[in-house]
Amino acid sequence: MPSADVIREAVARYLKAVADGTAGDIAACYAEDATLEDPVGSEPRRGRAAIREFYAAIETSRRHTELIALRVAAGSAAFHFLVRTELPDQTIDVAPIDVMTFDEDGRITSMRAFWNPDDMAVRRHGQDG
Amino acid sequence: MPSADVIREAVARYLKAVADGTAGDIAACYAEDATLEDPVGSEPRRGRAAIREFYAAIETSRRHTELIALRVAAGSAAFHFLVRTELPDQTIDVAPIDVMTFDEDGRITSMRAFWNPDDMAVRRHGQDG
Repeated sequence: MPSADVIREAVARYLKAVADGTAGDIAACYAEDATLEDPVGSEPRRGRAAIREFYAAIETSRRHTELIALRVAAGSAAFHFLVRTELPDQTIDVAPIDVMTFDEDGRITSMRAFWNPDDMAVRRHGQDG
Repeated sequence: MPSADVIREAVARYLKAVADGTAGDIAACYAEDATLEDPVGSEPRRGRAAIREFYAAIETSRRHTELIALRVAAGSAAFHFLVRTELPDQTIDVAPIDVMTFDEDGRITSMRAFWNPDDMAVRRHGQDG
């Protein structure tokens, strides 16, 4: 079972990759045969290729992430965090609670994201001129 | 699958019972054959009698609960909340992230609490005289 420190580092690495990385960088935070269920209730994706494809959708936008609260228990973590996505005409904030399990090396073996579309806050940008 | 509103009400009812209720009141928030894993990694308890026994430990102390963040997805919820327990000589704060699933009537069918002893904040009370 990975230590609490390994898990805390793994969560920080994941949030940094979601903010700054390519889809490949984010997928590299996952174990080869990991599962991803985002949002909870959707069909889980399995394996790094499917996970990379999931993150490809956000790859081209400017993003910012912020950890709000993290709880670690027995090789797993639950954490509340903000993802801000900057699009040309709007800024989208969503702050899910994710639950993850990890392998010995701190790679994510499963991820489940609790949120629903009502949790999204969209700010349309003012128009100049 | 219970609606988001049913789940939000169920979480509010649970937090009120944890603050003000007897162990029986809290156990009544659970389905008859529910499971409880608190903290995550401990042996899960199953059934309302075992769940009632779990909460009997806190029944006699003064408690306060506060919802910090709640995310609902597909018949389940993840939420961050504070439990403050007032003992004669100290106040103990712990703010777990809980994950719950619910039946059609909003009764909890499973509960997993993510926290570890490092997350507890203990304030010893000053002594008078």
